[in-house]
Amino acid sequence: MDTHAPRRIILDTDPGIDDALAILLALASPELSLEAITVTGGNCSLAQGVDNALRVLALAHATHVPVLAGLETPLIRPPLTAPETHGDTGLGYARLEPSPQVAGSRHAVDLLIEQIMAAPGEMTLVAVAPLTNVALAIRREPRIVKAVREVIIMGGALLHQGNTTPVAEFNTYVDPHAAHIVYHSGMPITLAPLDVTYQCVLTQRDVSRLLALNSPIAQFIADATRFYMEFHDDYQGIQGCVINDPLALALTFAPELVTTRPLYVTVDLSSELGMGQTIGDFYNAWQHSPNLRVALQVRARAFIDLFVTRMEALIRSMNAAIS
Amino acid sequence: MDTHAPRRIILDTDPGIDDALAILLALASPELSLEAITVTGGNCSLAQGVDNALRVLALAHATHVPVLAGLETPLIRPPLTAPETHGDTGLGYARLEPSPQVAGSRHAVDLLIEQIMAAPGEMTLVAVAPLTNVALAIRREPRIVKAVREVIIMGGALLHQGNTTPVAEFNTYVDPHAAHIVYHSGMPITLAPLDVTYQCVLTQRDVSRLLALNSPIAQFIADATRFYMEFHDDYQGIQGCVINDPLALALTFAPELVTTRPLYVTVDLSSELGMGQTIGDFYNAWQHSPNLRVALQVRARAFIDLFVTRMEALIRSMNAAIS
Amino acid sequence: MDTHAPRRIILDTDPGIDDALAILLALASPELSLEAITVTGGNCSLAQGVDNALRVLALAHATHVPVLAGLETPLIRPPLTAPETHGDTGLGYARLEPSPQVAGSRHAVDLLIEQIMAAPGEMTLVAVAPLTNVALAIRREPRIVKAVREVIIMGGALLHQGNTTPVAEFNTYVDPHAAHIVYHSGMPITLAPLDVTYQCVLTQRDVSRLLALNSPIAQFIADATRFYMEFHDDYQGIQGCVINDPLALALTFAPELVTTRPLYVTVDLSSELGMGQTIGDFYNAWQHSPNLRVALQVRARAFIDLFVTRMEALIRSMNAAIS
Amino acid sequence: MDTHAPRRIILDTDPGIDDALAILLALASPELSLEAITVTGGNCSLAQGVDNALRVLALAHATHVPVLAGLETPLIRPPLTAPETHGDTGLGYARLEPSPQVAGSRHAVDLLIEQIMAAPGEMTLVAVAPLTNVALAIRREPRIVKAVREVIIMGGALLHQGNTTPVAEFNTYVDPHAAHIVYHSGMPITLAPLDVTYQCVLTQRDVSRLLALNSPIAQFIADATRFYMEFHDDYQGIQGCVINDPLALALTFAPELVTTRPLYVTVDLSSELGMGQTIGDFYNAWQHSPNLRVALQVRARAFIDLFVTRMEALIRSMNAAIS
Repeated sequence: MDTHAPRRIILDTDPGIDDALAILLALASPELSLEAITVTGGNCSLAQGVDNALRVLALAHATHVPVLAGLETPLIRPPLTAPETHGDTGLGYARLEPSPQVAGSRHAVDLLIEQIMAAPGEMTLVAVAPLTNVALAIRREPRIVKAVREVIIMGGALLHQGNTTPVAEFNTYVDPHAAHIVYHSGMPITLAPLDVTYQCVLTQRDVSRLLALNSPIAQFIADATRFYMEFHDDYQGIQGCVINDPLALALTFAPELVTTRPLYVTVDLSSELGMGQTIGDFYNAWQHSPNLRVALQVRARAFIDLFVTRMEALIRSMNAAIS
Repeated sequence: MDTHAPRRIILDTDPGIDDALAILLALASPELSLEAITVTGGNCSLAQGVDNALRVLALAHATHVPVLAGLETPLIRPPLTAPETHGDTGLGYARLEPSPQVAGSRHAVDLLIEQIMAAPGEMTLVAVAPLTNVALAIRREPRIVKAVREVIIMGGALLHQGNTTPVAEFNTYVDPHAAHIVYHSGMPITLAPLDVTYQCVLTQRDVSRLLALNSPIAQFIADATRFYMEFHDDYQGIQGCVINDPLALALTFAPELVTTRPLYVTVDLSSELGMGQTIGDFYNAWQHSPNLRVALQVRARAFIDLFVTRMEALIRSMNAAIS
Repeated sequence: MDTHAPRRIILDTDPGIDDALAILLALASPELSLEAITVTGGNCSLAQGVDNALRVLALAHATHVPVLAGLETPLIRPPLTAPETHGDTGLGYARLEPSPQVAGSRHAVDLLIEQIMAAPGEMTLVAVAPLTNVALAIRREPRIVKAVREVIIMGGALLHQGNTTPVAEFNTYVDPHAAHIVYHSGMPITLAPLDVTYQCVLTQRDVSRLLALNSPIAQFIADATRFYMEFHDDYQGIQGCVINDPLALALTFAPELVTTRPLYVTVDLSSELGMGQTIGDFYNAWQHSPNLRVALQVRARAFIDLFVTRMEALIRSMNAAIS
Repeated sequence: MDTHAPRRIILDTDPGIDDALAILLALASPELSLEAITVTGGNCSLAQGVDNALRVLALAHATHVPVLAGLETPLIRPPLTAPETHGDTGLGYARLEPSPQVAGSRHAVDLLIEQIMAAPGEMTLVAVAPLTNVALAIRREPRIVKAVREVIIMGGALLHQGNTTPVAEFNTYVDPHAAHIVYHSGMPITLAPLDVTYQCVLTQRDVSRLLALNSPIAQFIADATRFYMEFHDDYQGIQGCVINDPLALALTFAPELVTTRPLYVTVDLSSELGMGQTIGDFYNAWQHSPNLRVALQVRARAFIDLFVTRMEALIRSMNAAIS
C-alpha cells in the first residue's frame, strides 16, 4: 500500500455525542479516508444512531460517506442505552437537520467483512461502540482477524473506575460478550480505556474557542457538549466533558499522544457484579501472552488542542467553501 | 403450504454417531424432505463433521442433499469435542468410504437465513448440535425468528443430571451462549432434553435385528453404536446407547412420542459450576412466560421401535434398488 | 456406648411447621433421647423460632428439653424467612399457649460444641434448618467433625426442582455458605433432599385420622398443616403437604425408610442463578470421593404411616397421663 | 476512657514479614498498648504464625503480650499461604530463636469477643491478616460491632491492581467471605488498601540506616526484608519492599499519614475471576451509604521515616537496657 495515501478507516460507532465528535475529527483529518460508518445500538438505539450519523455527515457536507446499520442489540445481554449521558436523541441539546442521505442497504457486518477482506492489510477499524458488529463479523468470517490492518478500540477501564458500573466502562458493559470475542480474537488491537480518555477533558473554554468562529459545526459542538458537561458534573463531579471517542480516532494518525504497553486483558463475563470489567494482568499472574496494546498514559492537553485546532480548521474550510 | 407435502427440514448437526442416525432417520422418513444439512463443530471438528455428513449421505445414496459448513468454534467459549463418546472420527468404529459429493460453498449461516426467509412459515429446523449456527443466524437476521415454522432442539437437561458436567448436557455446555440466544429468541421451540432422550436406549438386540439384514447401513449402525455402547457402559453404567438426536428428528412427524409442557427455561451462563445448565422454572418462581415446549415424558420403546423399523425399511428399499 | 440406650440427638431447627412435627416425632420415639433443641433463623426469625420450639415442647409436656438460640442471620447472605409457607408465626394457623419454659442462656453454637465434644462418637445431630449454627460450630471447633456420631440433614435437591428457586431448596438457599462448610467438613452426613421428602405427602385423610383422637396435639397438627397444605396447593399444585423434617428425624431410628447412595455433592455459591443448588456428581465427572450419603428413594407411605402412628401413640399416652 | 492513656489495641495478624514489622512498630509506639496478638492462617500456617509472633515478641523482649491462635483455615475457601512472598517460615531469611513464651490457651475468637465486650468503646482492632477471626467473632457475638472503638484493616485494592490475582489483594483473596462479613458488619472501619500501601516502599538504604545500629532487631529486619525485596523485584519490578501492615498499625496514632474518604465498598464473592476484589463505588452508581473510610492517598515518605525512626528508637532503648 501507499504509505503516503490517506489511511483507510471504517468507524464502528453508536452516535452519541463523543462519537459525533469522532466523526467530525475523522472528516477534519487529511491523514484519513473515512470509508464507511457502521452503526450499532449503544448510546442510543440503532435507528437513532444511524440517523445521528447521517445528520452529522450532512452537517459536515460529507454525505458521500456510507452509513450502514448493524446489530440492534448486544449478543447476549438486553440492550442498554445512555440517555442520561447523551440525551434523548443521543446528541445532547443539539438539533440537527435531517440528512438527504439514506443509510446503505447492506448489513454493517457484511460490509465490515467485505471491506476488510477486499484489501488485506489495508483497512483500519476504529471501534468506539459496543463491539457487537465487530464480534459478529469475526465469528462469521474469522479471516478478517488477519486481514485487518489495525483495530483501535475505545473501551474498558483498567485501573480507572468504571463509568457504568463501579468496575465497567459503558461500551464493554453493554456487550461484554462481544468485547470478549474481539479482545481474544488475535486482531492487532490498541485499546484506549478510561484510564486515558478520562484525562482528556474538553472544557467550556475550549468550546468557546470554537464558538468564536461563526459556524453550524461550532454551534453543534457547543449544544451537544453542554448536555454532556452537565452529565459529567452531576454524575462524576467533572468540570467539562470527557471526549473518549475522538481520542481513539486520533490514535490512527497520532499514536504518540499515548503511551501504550502490551498487556493481557480479559473481560469479566462471570457475574453481574464484575460484568464487563476489563481485567489487565499487570503482574503477569496468569502467565498469558499480551493480547492488546493498552494506552495507559496520555498527553491529554496536546490531544485536546489537536482536537480543537482540527475543528477550527474544518470550520474554516467549510466557511471558505460556502463563501 | 401443502400439508400433505413432505415437511421441509434443515438439520443442523455435528455428526457424531447419533447425529448420523438422525440423518438416516430423516432419509428413511417419507414425511420429510431433508433440504440441507448444516454443520458446526461439536462432537467432532467442523471439517470432520462435514466429512462425516457427506459420507453418511453417500452411504444412503443421498448425495443430493447439500451439506454446508458453519462455525468452527462456539461464540465465546473454547471448542470442546467428544472423542470419548463418538470416537476419533466422530463415528465410533465405523469406517465409511469418502463421498464423491463436496460440501456446499455457502456458509451454513447464510443458507439458514436464506432458506427460512425464502419460505416464511414453511421451514422446520431440527438442531441437534451446539446452537452456534442458529444463534449467529438469529443475530444476523432477526426476522428468521418469525419466519421459521418450528425448531426442534435436542439439548439440555432439566431434572436429569448432565452428561458433560453434573448439571450440563453436551450441546448446551459446548455453546451455552448460543443456546441462551436461541432459547430466548422467541422462536417456536420444542426441546428434547436428556430427561426424555436418556430413556431411549438402543440395545444390542435392536442392532442385531438390523444386522440380520445384510447391508452396509446395518453394518455402519452396528460399528458406530458398538463404540457408543462401550462409552455408555464405561461412563454411565448404561447397557446400550442413548440415541438423542434421532428422537428430536422423529418429533417432526411423530410428536405424540413425547408429552411436552410449556416452560420457562434459561441457560446458566453465570459461573463455571453451572455453565450450560438448562434451568426450568417448574414452580413459576420467576413469573416469566414459558419460552419453550419441553418434552418431559417419552414413549421410549415406541420410539426405538419406530427407529429400528424405519432403518429396516431404508435398508430394504436400498437393497431392492441395488438388486 | 450402650447400643440399647436411646440414641442421643440434638435437633437444630428453625420451627417452622414441619420442624414442629419433627420435634413431636422425636418426643414420640422411644428410640431417641432429645437432648437439646438449637435454633437458627430460617422459616421464621430466631426469636420466633425459639418461642415456637418452647411452645411445641410445652404442648407435648416436654419442657425439660433445653432450647437454645443460635445465629439470627446466615453467614454471608441477608436473612430470608418463609411466611408464605409457614405463616406469620411460623406455625400456620395454629395458636399455641406461651410456655413457662425459658430458652437456655448458652449460645447454641457453644452447646453444640460442648455436647458433641463431651461424648465423642455418641451424639447425633439432626439438622433441619439452614446450617448456620452447625457451620459456625465446625469453624470454631473443628474437632466436632470427628466427634459427632452422625449428622442427618434435611436439605438440598439433587434431581428434583428447588422449592425456593428453580434449582435451590430452602435450607440450602438461605445459607448456602454454611451448607458448603458442613457438606465439605468431613462429618458423616446423611442427606434427605427434596428428592425423597417431596414424595412424603401428609394428606387431609392422615390428619383426619389424628383428629379422631381428641387432643390438643391433634388439633395443633391440623391447624398447622391446614396452612401448609394451602401453600402446597397454591404454589406447587400438591394436594396435602410435604413433611420434610420429620423424615430426616425418622432416619435416626428407621434408616430403612430410604435408600441412600454415597455421592459427591457440592453447593453452588458462584452465582445468583445457581445460588444454593446442591449439585451431585452422579457420573463422577469430577472424580472426587463421595462426601455424603444421599437418600434418593423413599418408602413414602411407610414413613407417613409411621409418622401418623407415632403421633397417635403420643396423643394416647398424653391423654392417658392426663386422665 | 482516659484519652491520654495509651490506646489499647489488639493486633490480628498472620506473621508474615510485614506483620512482624507491625508488631515491632506497635511495641515501639508509646501511644499504644498492645493487649494481645491474635493469629490466623494466611501468609503462613496458623501454627507457624503463632510461633513467629512469639519469636518476634521475644526478640523485642515483649513476652508479656499474649499470643492466641484463631482459625487455621478461611471460612469457605481452601487455605492459601504465601511462601513465595514471605519465605518458608514466613519471616524471609531471618532465623529467630524460639521463645520461652507459650501461646495462650484461649481461642483467639473468644478473646476478641471478651476483650471488646469488656471495655465497650475502648478497644481498637488492627487487622492485618485474612479477616477470618474477626468475621467469626462478629457472627458469634454481633454486639462487638457496636462495642469496638475502631477497626483498622490492611486489605483490599480499589484502583490499584491486585497483588494476588489481577484484581484481588492477598488478605481479601484468602478469605473474601470473611472480608465481606466484616466490611458489611457496621463496624467503624478504616481501610488501608494497596492504593496507599504500595506507595510505602522500604528501601535498602532505609535498612542500612538500621543496620548502622548494632542490634539483633536491626539484623532481623535486614534478613526478613532482604527476602521480601527479592520477591518485590522478581514479581512486581519494585525496588525495595512494600510494608503494608505497619502502615495500618501507624494509623492508630498517626491518622494524618493518609487521606481517607467514606466509600461504599463490597467484596466480590461471585466468581473465580473477581473473587476477593474490593469494589468501591466511586461514582455512587449503587446509591448505598458508605460503609468504610478508605485511605486513598498517603504521605509515603513521612510514614517510612516514622517507621525507621521508631525502629531506631526501639533498638536504642533495648541496647540501653542491655548495657
